[in-house]
Amino acid sequence: MVYRESFKVQSNDKVVTFHNVTAGAKEILTRSGIRNGILVVYSHHTTCAVITQEDAFDKSMTGLETLQQDLVEVMEGICPTQRKEGMYLHPGPKALAFAETCGEDARGCHNADAHLRSSIIGRSETIVVEDGRMDLGEYGFIYFIDFDQTRARERTVQVMIIGE
Amino acid sequence: MVYRESFKVQSNDKVVTFHNVTAGAKEILTRSGIRNGILVVYSHHTTCAVITQEDAFDKSMTGLETLQQDLVEVMEGICPTQRKEGMYLHPGPKALAFAETCGEDARGCHNADAHLRSSIIGRSETIVVEDGRMDLGEYGFIYFIDFDQTRARERTVQVMIIGE
Amino acid sequence: MVYRESFKVQSNDKVVTFHNVTAGAKEILTRSGIRNGILVVYSHHTTCAVITQEDAFDKSMTGLETLQQDLVEVMEGICPTQRKEGMYLHPGPKALAFAETCGEDARGCHNADAHLRSSIIGRSETIVVEDGRMDLGEYGFIYFIDFDQTRARERTVQVMIIGE
Repeated sequence: MVYRESFKVQSNDKVVTFHNVTAGAKEILTRSGIRNGILVVYSHHTTCAVITQEDAFDKSMTGLETLQQDLVEVMEGICPTQRKEGMYLHPGPKALAFAETCGEDARGCHNADAHLRSSIIGRSETIVVEDGRMDLGEYGFIYFIDFDQTRARERTVQVMIIGE
Repeated sequence: MVYRESFKVQSNDKVVTFHNVTAGAKEILTRSGIRNGILVVYSHHTTCAVITQEDAFDKSMTGLETLQQDLVEVMEGICPTQRKEGMYLHPGPKALAFAETCGEDARGCHNADAHLRSSIIGRSETIVVEDGRMDLGEYGFIYFIDFDQTRARERTVQVMIIGE
Repeated sequence: MVYRESFKVQSNDKVVTFHNVTAGAKEILTRSGIRNGILVVYSHHTTCAVITQEDAFDKSMTGLETLQQDLVEVMEGICPTQRKEGMYLHPGPKALAFAETCGEDARGCHNADAHLRSSIIGRSETIVVEDGRMDLGEYGFIYFIDFDQTRARERTVQVMIIGE
């Protein structure tokens, strides 16, 4: 059996946004009627990623959970937020020209860091489903991360369940 | 067809532990009777990860294979082992208070590096199954990595096979 | 329903090679007849990885798209190309001796960086299939990355589709 649904989340401008999509995925699993198999949470957006992680209880001054802020900090070390030209090769002149034809401003195009972070963390997470319940351990949650800090945007969370 | 089994491994204290779980996964695949599809090796523990990698033959002074020690070193560069307060925001005061109610000591709570490494490497690996055999290439093995260095612990390895 | 096919790509020497395998995966999806489910693009090579990413339009001086070159640069920061002995523990004396029995020269064995990058990026990508079409977003493509810069080589791209 195969069951698919998607839903929307609203990301913020100027920050990395972590969407806790666990409840949404659980509801879709219930509607699917599938008891055993896998549940894939998937982003087709090339600047987003999906992880499972525990609730960290405490929050940072930016409103992120501490473990989320720590992940942002680690990513900042690997591929820093693109604050000006010259930090990355992308976007080049052709990409900028194409973006302009789509009505996108130059700032919205300078999100190379988000593309790279998405490739490193990964575009999907595959979760084992057992007896009608996702196996997320005692404290696990699913987070859909929007690494793109250049624009507030609506994003699509895909949930695909395969099993019986 | 859907087939699931899990088994336990015992991680060590004070080091990153690499569990070679290839034989366990193979036995489960044989019991499943599934000939073609995918096999997912999955950790619900938020400080563990799953990779496939080749046997490196040689060992480091800590007993890890050289490629495993090299991976630990690279991770040490990205998100160093949490040796004291102030290296990461996690754990904050609420997380520490909650851990105390669970009987966990403060040291066991300072595993932010393991949570982050697990998010970067990924919680599962999906392996193609062809003619009743995992396609791991000539030298491939499956490793379940426990990045948490704060405690010796029993961990659960989930294996889910979907196919026909 | 389960459908599997593989095809070959030819990697270059001395550089990281990005193979755009989107068209190949699409053809296999069409031949499968599967309308809804998941499509897994998988590498059994332990120095390769699979990502989805957008077309960056512009090219670097080495012929890579700018986002690809940026990814290579970020990886170079995390685990630099193995240019000499002592950068990594791998390959040790046993690995070198074994490689010699396989007719491989010492240089081809010094690819620890590629093994590590492959573990960090991940060996496969799982893509949602909806109404007979991969959900890759507006600009998404699938890239099979060969991080091994030590040899020109033929590589196998596995495509496994599960659904109905």
